[in-house]
Amino acid sequence: MNFASDNVGPVHPSIMAAVMAANEGSAMPYGGDDLTARAVERIREVFDHDAEVFLVATGTAANALALSAIVDPFGGVLAHGEAHVNTDECGAPELFTGGAKIIPLPGEGGRIPPAALRERLAAFVHGEHQVLPQALSLTNATEYGGVLTPEETAGLAAIAHAHGLGVHLDGARLANALAALECTPAEATWKAGVDVLSFGLTKNGAMCAEAVVFFDRERAHRFAWRRKRAGQLLSKGRYLAAQFLAALQDDLWLDLARHANAMAARLAEGLTGLPGIRTAHPVQANEVFVHLPRPLHAALVEAGAIYYPWRETEQTVLARLVTSWATSAEEVDRLISLARASV
Amino acid sequence: MNFASDNVGPVHPSIMAAVMAANEGSAMPYGGDDLTARAVERIREVFDHDAEVFLVATGTAANALALSAIVDPFGGVLAHGEAHVNTDECGAPELFTGGAKIIPLPGEGGRIPPAALRERLAAFVHGEHQVLPQALSLTNATEYGGVLTPEETAGLAAIAHAHGLGVHLDGARLANALAALECTPAEATWKAGVDVLSFGLTKNGAMCAEAVVFFDRERAHRFAWRRKRAGQLLSKGRYLAAQFLAALQDDLWLDLARHANAMAARLAEGLTGLPGIRTAHPVQANEVFVHLPRPLHAALVEAGAIYYPWRETEQTVLARLVTSWATSAEEVDRLISLARASV
Amino acid sequence: MNFASDNVGPVHPSIMAAVMAANEGSAMPYGGDDLTARAVERIREVFDHDAEVFLVATGTAANALALSAIVDPFGGVLAHGEAHVNTDECGAPELFTGGAKIIPLPGEGGRIPPAALRERLAAFVHGEHQVLPQALSLTNATEYGGVLTPEETAGLAAIAHAHGLGVHLDGARLANALAALECTPAEATWKAGVDVLSFGLTKNGAMCAEAVVFFDRERAHRFAWRRKRAGQLLSKGRYLAAQFLAALQDDLWLDLARHANAMAARLAEGLTGLPGIRTAHPVQANEVFVHLPRPLHAALVEAGAIYYPWRETEQTVLARLVTSWATSAEEVDRLISLARASV
Amino acid sequence: MNFASDNVGPVHPSIMAAVMAANEGSAMPYGGDDLTARAVERIREVFDHDAEVFLVATGTAANALALSAIVDPFGGVLAHGEAHVNTDECGAPELFTGGAKIIPLPGEGGRIPPAALRERLAAFVHGEHQVLPQALSLTNATEYGGVLTPEETAGLAAIAHAHGLGVHLDGARLANALAALECTPAEATWKAGVDVLSFGLTKNGAMCAEAVVFFDRERAHRFAWRRKRAGQLLSKGRYLAAQFLAALQDDLWLDLARHANAMAARLAEGLTGLPGIRTAHPVQANEVFVHLPRPLHAALVEAGAIYYPWRETEQTVLARLVTSWATSAEEVDRLISLARASV
Repeated sequence: MNFASDNVGPVHPSIMAAVMAANEGSAMPYGGDDLTARAVERIREVFDHDAEVFLVATGTAANALALSAIVDPFGGVLAHGEAHVNTDECGAPELFTGGAKIIPLPGEGGRIPPAALRERLAAFVHGEHQVLPQALSLTNATEYGGVLTPEETAGLAAIAHAHGLGVHLDGARLANALAALECTPAEATWKAGVDVLSFGLTKNGAMCAEAVVFFDRERAHRFAWRRKRAGQLLSKGRYLAAQFLAALQDDLWLDLARHANAMAARLAEGLTGLPGIRTAHPVQANEVFVHLPRPLHAALVEAGAIYYPWRETEQTVLARLVTSWATSAEEVDRLISLARASV
Repeated sequence: MNFASDNVGPVHPSIMAAVMAANEGSAMPYGGDDLTARAVERIREVFDHDAEVFLVATGTAANALALSAIVDPFGGVLAHGEAHVNTDECGAPELFTGGAKIIPLPGEGGRIPPAALRERLAAFVHGEHQVLPQALSLTNATEYGGVLTPEETAGLAAIAHAHGLGVHLDGARLANALAALECTPAEATWKAGVDVLSFGLTKNGAMCAEAVVFFDRERAHRFAWRRKRAGQLLSKGRYLAAQFLAALQDDLWLDLARHANAMAARLAEGLTGLPGIRTAHPVQANEVFVHLPRPLHAALVEAGAIYYPWRETEQTVLARLVTSWATSAEEVDRLISLARASV
Repeated sequence: MNFASDNVGPVHPSIMAAVMAANEGSAMPYGGDDLTARAVERIREVFDHDAEVFLVATGTAANALALSAIVDPFGGVLAHGEAHVNTDECGAPELFTGGAKIIPLPGEGGRIPPAALRERLAAFVHGEHQVLPQALSLTNATEYGGVLTPEETAGLAAIAHAHGLGVHLDGARLANALAALECTPAEATWKAGVDVLSFGLTKNGAMCAEAVVFFDRERAHRFAWRRKRAGQLLSKGRYLAAQFLAALQDDLWLDLARHANAMAARLAEGLTGLPGIRTAHPVQANEVFVHLPRPLHAALVEAGAIYYPWRETEQTVLARLVTSWATSAEEVDRLISLARASV
Repeated sequence: MNFASDNVGPVHPSIMAAVMAANEGSAMPYGGDDLTARAVERIREVFDHDAEVFLVATGTAANALALSAIVDPFGGVLAHGEAHVNTDECGAPELFTGGAKIIPLPGEGGRIPPAALRERLAAFVHGEHQVLPQALSLTNATEYGGVLTPEETAGLAAIAHAHGLGVHLDGARLANALAALECTPAEATWKAGVDVLSFGLTKNGAMCAEAVVFFDRERAHRFAWRRKRAGQLLSKGRYLAAQFLAALQDDLWLDLARHANAMAARLAEGLTGLPGIRTAHPVQANEVFVHLPRPLHAALVEAGAIYYPWRETEQTVLARLVTSWATSAEEVDRLISLARASV
């Protein structure tokens, strides 16, 4: 019953098998191997776009490097105040951009209201005394398990583009969003105005497989230098590439995300049927935020349930429960039973 | 016949098997898992020191982060002019240290003569007009396949410490040095004055397994923050840890390095017996630098040999040939035969 | 009628005369001259503290450099969201700290409520995933013309210190605060818990004269290197020093601030007596924020009044009017008359 | 007898008078004043080019900011190993460029031989593993008092441009070079291929007056943001501007440089006539480098002569003696007499 995050589970067997299978003979280092070339090509097919693609090892690096390609060191990145880039990356965006500033925006459930974006942009009227707003960073699925429709993304992107900003999408959980939306990867990204995507598979069954995908190819200019100096050019690139190839074959990545989403829905349904429990945000992807009475929280933890207390009051604990490809229905049902027995 | 680098070969089967074996059940993310704890403990045993240990994904990151812990942004790192940190990391040390300056030192075969170090340090007499010299970075084995004895390391470290500098060792090929020296890991590192080590296994049969090892534990203060913001805290840490545990079991890492060194010696012996070929540097570890007549170089390349032309003149090519755990005696002999047939 | 800022006026004649008087003979460069030594000594006397003092050329540099001495690149600076360091310095703090993050706090009139500070600090529970909160930056007088009493400063500083943070004070308008408070420089700064002060005279009659004053002397360790590499070590330091010596003689700096404050009070009193005009913030120092009906704003601008429209709605303009040592009562009265004639 | 540097003397009376004269009435801050507009225009006239011009406070800032506009953070700046940007600015270029690397080149007297530049550029063949060479930084007059002819500058610039590099000129002593060359400012700069110039007057009689002059106007894109976030946008810009206007009127700046050069020539001639004294470098501008026997050096210092011992051996001291507009013939002759009496 480990619902701490979607990275607590193991690597999916098909992906691990592909890593094993890649372990044959010599291969040119630093991404000069055949598997890397094939993985890049496969990502292009999946997104139906002749994008520039760079594989890296972590999502934090993917986000921070992607931003570094679209803002100057004296630039500003507008993002939700609770976006991962603002609150969970220990200043990696500041490091890789050379000091750009993240401008936090408000909004329920990790969503940025278009009006908030417009209002904030309107406040940049003092020229060089302020940082130069150059990027909008979105997250889909959001930090609170919400999903942006292509229309929502497109609406925000249009405002950004109208002000000359580039649009970044943190897609650490893009698969979960796509599984919920039943739209194509292209529709959720470049067709909706995304210029550069952090495309993550690590939370979705891979070992460590992240990519920076430039739909706006000019933004990728000299990005190879950025990746190298960030220590993100793995010498044995084939093992990253193998993960992408396996995950993207026969829509495995989407199947895994669908399962994770289904487990979250099952969990939410089971819990919210119980007295005193209510969800804090709509459950659209693979995260469940529920307010738990303190005694129930204590009982669950005591019984071995692992999850993350997001915020606490005297009466309740706001719990974040994350599901993944490896979450089983039995595990979910066990937690629900436990909760039922404890309320 | 791929002698391009020691990272062109596959992962050693025992290490890959350990990665597979780690793929079971849930584990706390970001290095909070049991395997990571055991890997850290094992590294401490190997070095016979209660060091602070941090796992990361690449050697470039290990070096740059290690340096960031021992120099200020306004500091200077004295290093050989051809050290990896100065010539092959695209400015990663500058990025992670916040702009510290690498002060290049001369020396044959990647070795820093003590007199050159002393002389350079003596030139820092202008206070804040110059960067503040704060670190010495050594490499063992060197970029040219030489090996520093514990006495050499200790001599340079003593000069550095006398001037208040910290001592970093780039140990991307430490195993090869140890295999050549037949000394203990402790003797080649902290007993010789090394304060912080980049300990690499990737060139020695791992997939991606690097560690920053602080023998001077105070230098590790808040290093966890540095690693995270550098995008080097892998969420699924167990797969890094498994590699270390497998490589460090029963001295596998040293056996692999011994094999690599033996192949380099065999290659050097075979080639230098031929007319017109001479080594550029003593072959002490797993790299062979030979001056090849241009026609011979052309013939080898034509026959499918892969290696790196380090420097070229009208008459000759200085070739770098690197061996690894995966290099076979047959491969070596094939290259020698080819060369014999072509001179 | 230029109320745009307190830096639109000329240099006070006594200060300019001192600059002229310094222009005699040779003097050692880079702050090695006698005047600099005397200015440092004088600042120590004024603050009744054996502080470490560094002269620099701009307030933005003073703030950013001061912060760089008390936070790591992976650190966080808690500051009011509308503090100069967060909104008006184009990311200079991010540049000079190497990427530290400013964590914006809410609060009326540029004041940070102690509860807001406590609550924000309590949210740092995720270790290295978040930046490390290391500094609190206060401003006195605030961006909105308010003044922090020594008790307020001490209260916030105590919270900060209890959490291990250093306390910075942006004192670009410290003189105006002191003039309002009628307390000693020591009482408003180090006796209230300030560790490092940006001490500005430029807005108060100097040409360009700012100092970073470390009451916590250990924080000044190697600050000379930071100042030099920031391009803030002026080669002809005597001309900076002369300004400090003149301003700090016979309390000239406090007299100038008292005059500026008096002019602001006169302006506020005159304007708020008029129908439809109300102040947005209490006028405690040398800034007046008033909501002006749009027609009145248009009339004033038409008549040649210069000031800064801070925020605009359909009906009103929030105007910022700043007074200085050079503002005359006539000028103030003229504006009031104009306003009276236009409402 | 202070020959320590060209910044030990006072401000020239005409320049100081202009600063005084600027001290009248209100002026818009941050360079929005009339004097700044006129100074920029005057600099354009002097260089006969519609350049983009930005005033800053120090030469170190001018250099570092200029470089930040023409290299990426992952870029390389080729410069003489003893150039001010490499040895005397405490890493300011690294700070302002975000970590770009200065690649030191050899050469007598601070001059870069074209062959050395070509050879170094030819070594950049490893793509993203190396920093990307993007700029050449020259110095005129050089650190050793030599002067680059327009032809020399043009030759080096042509090599740089052919490799896609931008060309920066550190003109802290450009006036001295022009005085020696008797060529126009245009001929020594943009007509010889210089893209961006650090134009310094501080060493030539000003108080603090430096400018970054972009002959390649596209390079100046968003430079206003860079200057502001570097803390180099002075709020009371008129006092910087006044210095430029005074110095550039009626060729005062060139007259001052001619005098400084003449004093250096007189000093060199007087000293080298004495037994045991020889110059280390040709004296073309306002610096004299002479090898002095140790007893003579001791005698001069004893007698109150101030200058900088550049390098020392057991027998001799290499002394750097710098002259300026404020150096008198009497002072020079006194030193020569002293030397004559002591050899």
